Amino acid sequence: MVDLIRKKRDGETLTREEIGYWIRSTVDESIPDYQISALLMAIYLRGMTDEETAVLTDEMARSGARFTPDDLGGFTVDKHSTGGVGDKTTLVLIPLLAAAGLTVGKLSGRALGHTGGTIDKLASIPGFRTDLSRDEFLGLVRRTGLALADHTDDMVPADRILYELRDVTATVDSLPLIVASIMSKKIAGGARGIVIDVKTGSGAFLPKLEDSRKLAHALVSIGARFGRKMAALITDMSQPLGRMVGNALEVEEAIDTLRGEGPDDLVALCCELGAELLLFSGTCSDRGQATDRLRGHLVDGSALDKFRELIANQGGNPAVIEDGSLLPRAAHRAEARAPHGGVICNLDARSIGRAANLLGAGRSTKEESVDPAVGVQLLEKIGSRVEKDQILALLHVNDRNPLKTAYQLVESAYEIDPRAEDAPPPPLIIDRILN
Amino acid sequence: MVDLIRKKRDGETLTREEIGYWIRSTVDESIPDYQISALLMAIYLRGMTDEETAVLTDEMARSGARFTPDDLGGFTVDKHSTGGVGDKTTLVLIPLLAAAGLTVGKLSGRALGHTGGTIDKLASIPGFRTDLSRDEFLGLVRRTGLALADHTDDMVPADRILYELRDVTATVDSLPLIVASIMSKKIAGGARGIVIDVKTGSGAFLPKLEDSRKLAHALVSIGARFGRKMAALITDMSQPLGRMVGNALEVEEAIDTLRGEGPDDLVALCCELGAELLLFSGTCSDRGQATDRLRGHLVDGSALDKFRELIANQGGNPAVIEDGSLLPRAAHRAEARAPHGGVICNLDARSIGRAANLLGAGRSTKEESVDPAVGVQLLEKIGSRVEKDQILALLHVNDRNPLKTAYQLVESAYEIDPRAEDAPPPPLIIDRILN
Repeated sequence: MVDLIRKKRDGETLTREEIGYWIRSTVDESIPDYQISALLMAIYLRGMTDEETAVLTDEMARSGARFTPDDLGGFTVDKHSTGGVGDKTTLVLIPLLAAAGLTVGKLSGRALGHTGGTIDKLASIPGFRTDLSRDEFLGLVRRTGLALADHTDDMVPADRILYELRDVTATVDSLPLIVASIMSKKIAGGARGIVIDVKTGSGAFLPKLEDSRKLAHALVSIGARFGRKMAALITDMSQPLGRMVGNALEVEEAIDTLRGEGPDDLVALCCELGAELLLFSGTCSDRGQATDRLRGHLVDGSALDKFRELIANQGGNPAVIEDGSLLPRAAHRAEARAPHGGVICNLDARSIGRAANLLGAGRSTKEESVDPAVGVQLLEKIGSRVEKDQILALLHVNDRNPLKTAYQLVESAYEIDPRAEDAPPPPLIIDRILN
Repeated sequence: MVDLIRKKRDGETLTREEIGYWIRSTVDESIPDYQISALLMAIYLRGMTDEETAVLTDEMARSGARFTPDDLGGFTVDKHSTGGVGDKTTLVLIPLLAAAGLTVGKLSGRALGHTGGTIDKLASIPGFRTDLSRDEFLGLVRRTGLALADHTDDMVPADRILYELRDVTATVDSLPLIVASIMSKKIAGGARGIVIDVKTGSGAFLPKLEDSRKLAHALVSIGARFGRKMAALITDMSQPLGRMVGNALEVEEAIDTLRGEGPDDLVALCCELGAELLLFSGTCSDRGQATDRLRGHLVDGSALDKFRELIANQGGNPAVIEDGSLLPRAAHRAEARAPHGGVICNLDARSIGRAANLLGAGRSTKEESVDPAVGVQLLEKIGSRVEKDQILALLHVNDRNPLKTAYQLVESAYEIDPRAEDAPPPPLIIDRILN
């Protein structure tokens, strides 16, 4: 292991045998953490070639239990987002893609971020279970073409161990390590077609467009090496997506969207992401046809039916679809108002995310629980003309202690130009990277 | 700690508070090894400024018990070598400097290298104790001006912990970490004047002259910041120093040298190193006078008397000085002979060192013991004209298992040019770096 660290320290390329040895020994705990962390820092500072990153992805994907495309059956698809504020795309896309005839067996982890991840959001539906066994998950996917479950501990254990170390050794933001972490889980998930939503802008994990572009290219190129059909969209996260930021709040907005009543940006993004997968599967032959078809499933109720089915199959109460009051609700609402009139020319996603997090919607360690009810509801977004004292946003609050700071964050997120005639919203789809 | 790692990872400069926090938390074990090793790798790859290195040295020196110049009394001097093959300079210098009226209270560690270190060499004298208590050590220095002891565990504990981690994470060869490791121990040792013997050539820790020069400058500059008088000589280690390589074998050669019968290179090096310290102390005003005076102490028996006194004071049998057979002797001697006649134009120090190590003279972990009796005796060195089959070297052997490989190493170390008229030995003193 010392020789391996020395090689990477000196900027040399690790062989498949060396990377395999490292990952196997990490999982069986035969090398100590302090050697792994020294190697991680050397990788952070020296980088990895595309070939090394592909091998690392492969070794990580093989480090535990996994699914092959044949295990799942049908044309299986997966979607990944690098994470943003108000990003409930997965909640909409899963039933939407199933309605379009694709097979969706999605595995997800506990997210660390401004709000919880998909698993946390679905967990706000009373009774909904994501802790499916391997057999339950496979059974649902094969029988109904639709299931969503936690990553089990026996899948990609190398990623869990490495991530924990990276988190405490300032080696998280390394492109090859990020790529291997994301793609090893996607490859182990068994999808044939994968679309990645790489967010850019203040609320994104990588705020700079240049970094988002690099990541998108790396993800697509690695996935293609494993014979998976890959696309990445670089999409805006300078303002939050949709109007709801929280857990139950986002489920509500996802249900509205599946009913054909979603906000324009969220609807557009879901249809654009989904279209890539319909093209991969051969279901549609051009992108326009694909997005039209998906919009149709949102309007005709077929996507909502699939969501109802998903909830029922996994133990949840499907009545939440008709009665939003069955979802957890916060005890209080606080109003953020416009300090003066004008046109909203900016709405900083990061500040809104931090406000939601302060209110209890997110977690900073995997052990923390999230409050499903709290969050921020954006009544106005970029381009709206507002009067002085008009309500801009509602804060859904249980614990009042962090309210003042959260309130200030929401207020500061809004930039209102008193002299502007109008302000165009930022473009939603910034780039599309195909293999 | 994560912020601190991140700063160094990004090439920023750590503050005194940050370095102090790191070292204190390392010693009190409140930060985990995996964070320390990530930081060490970041330092390895990003470097440290002179100011950071000085602060690190200071914090390490303060991490445990230490001596001030006033504790020791008199004009206290110290000498450090970066380590080489056949380097018994300290054994000669300590009594020689004491004979010249300087105060020598030297602390030394268990060396990892081709042979043992000074402590191991002295331990081959029957009865000689180096595990002196702080009070014993101080008492001897104050009463006799001369003592040599192990670094106790309570001195510079930060260096011990960091070195163990560096050893297993490929972060040993980092200039700022090497400098802080050496100088923290020298500063904690309390000497007013310090001379460093930085070896260069194949048998040195840093074989390249350029690296040796950088290290020498850094050591001198850091020591001067602490108000210590500093000099560094860059000296040849392309061939071994003197004729003996081992532990008891080197004690024998040191005794010969203290009796005025030492090999030229060893005598010259001891007098050159010692002269710097005589100049610092004000005992002599020019270098020629200082080396002459030291040569005088070798010839008139006064240095040998001091060595006898040192041995007796620390429980050893001073009769070894008159009777070398009281030192441990190996069971067998094997002869390495010249494969053809000619002039020896090269004698590779590294190969000789490895041979001695294989025979048992050195250790590779601190827990191993060394065999005091074994080693290599060089009958011929660079510049000698030899006949075919003439004996070049004697291998002093206890365990015959490694003999064949050791023998091949010794043979391969000698380069004999059949056509050369003569071959000048490499220059001994390559550079002198003063503050």
